[in-house]
Amino acid sequence: SDEVKKNLIHRLNRIEGQVRGINRMVEEDQYCLDILNQISAVRSALNRVGQILLESHIRGCVAGAIEQKRGDEAIDELMDVVSRYMK
Amino acid sequence: SDEVKKNLIHRLNRIEGQVRGINRMVEEDQYCLDILNQISAVRSALNRVGQILLESHIRGCVAGAIEQKRGDEAIDELMDVVSRYMK
Amino acid sequence: SDEVKKNLIHRLNRIEGQVRGINRMVEEDQYCLDILNQISAVRSALNRVGQILLESHIRGCVAGAIEQKRGDEAIDELMDVVSRYMK
Amino acid sequence: SDEVKKNLIHRLNRIEGQVRGINRMVEEDQYCLDILNQISAVRSALNRVGQILLESHIRGCVAGAIEQKRGDEAIDELMDVVSRYMK
Repeated sequence: SDEVKKNLIHRLNRIEGQVRGINRMVEEDQYCLDILNQISAVRSALNRVGQILLESHIRGCVAGAIEQKRGDEAIDELMDVVSRYMK
Repeated sequence: SDEVKKNLIHRLNRIEGQVRGINRMVEEDQYCLDILNQISAVRSALNRVGQILLESHIRGCVAGAIEQKRGDEAIDELMDVVSRYMK
Repeated sequence: SDEVKKNLIHRLNRIEGQVRGINRMVEEDQYCLDILNQISAVRSALNRVGQILLESHIRGCVAGAIEQKRGDEAIDELMDVVSRYMK
Repeated sequence: SDEVKKNLIHRLNRIEGQVRGINRMVEEDQYCLDILNQISAVRSALNRVGQILLESHIRGCVAGAIEQKRGDEAIDELMDVVSRYMK
């Protein structure tokens, strides 16, 4: 939906800025552990984006496929991606 | 299904043995990094069990709920658990 | 140290029991998402054990090696293991 | 070192570009699972940056502190950050 899309774009813009900030921290030789904490924050922010996308994918594509009795393939494909996050 | 269940029980028995093995390694003062590698192996094995359970849950409960037009709640509940793994 | 060792053995005994409990949940066909939550709890418990072991390894072996000017190799070996957890 | 720094800046520039690409994928309504795969790739790239920074921190600051008999505090601080990655 448009709501979700705007939310995601907003989050990704913020993440892009955070990555740029981390780059600056490296250039300015800031303290390693501070940089590592920033990286950990970006990781969390990215994971949140991933969760939102996944939820929207399941509610949209996967649910639609199941309703049209084409669920098996959609779930195979879904699990491929989810497994990458559950390693 | 019975196939999946047997597979899971087999994997969990193995994991239980691996945890017991790690305990023995600690008792016998074995090398920390060897123990850490074993813990990493158990983590992977547990994640695999989680993936199998998740897939079976989506194919069974979630797909069933969607077919019966009760998908929204099932997906909320699913995302609660998945988010825990995507942190 | 003995303190740390006792702590780890206690935690690992608990984890072993939790894994056995998960196995029982599977055998008794309990609800998938409840089992997945239990698996997530064991993962956290294992990660905590990993953190304690890692800390004790760094304070003991790695610090000792650095003091004896043999730090480089110890840090290579350490990073090998840590990388596995930072994937 | 300068070598490491250049390497990190290069990686972070690439990650910034990847995040911008993900944003574009969202704007263009590309397929959710393709976007999720891209997010997973950025996560791995960020983790690699984290590993490099951590290694350089341990070889530099932590080893230096241990040599000057101020290791305990440096290791406390290190474990704080590492724990965040071992959750």
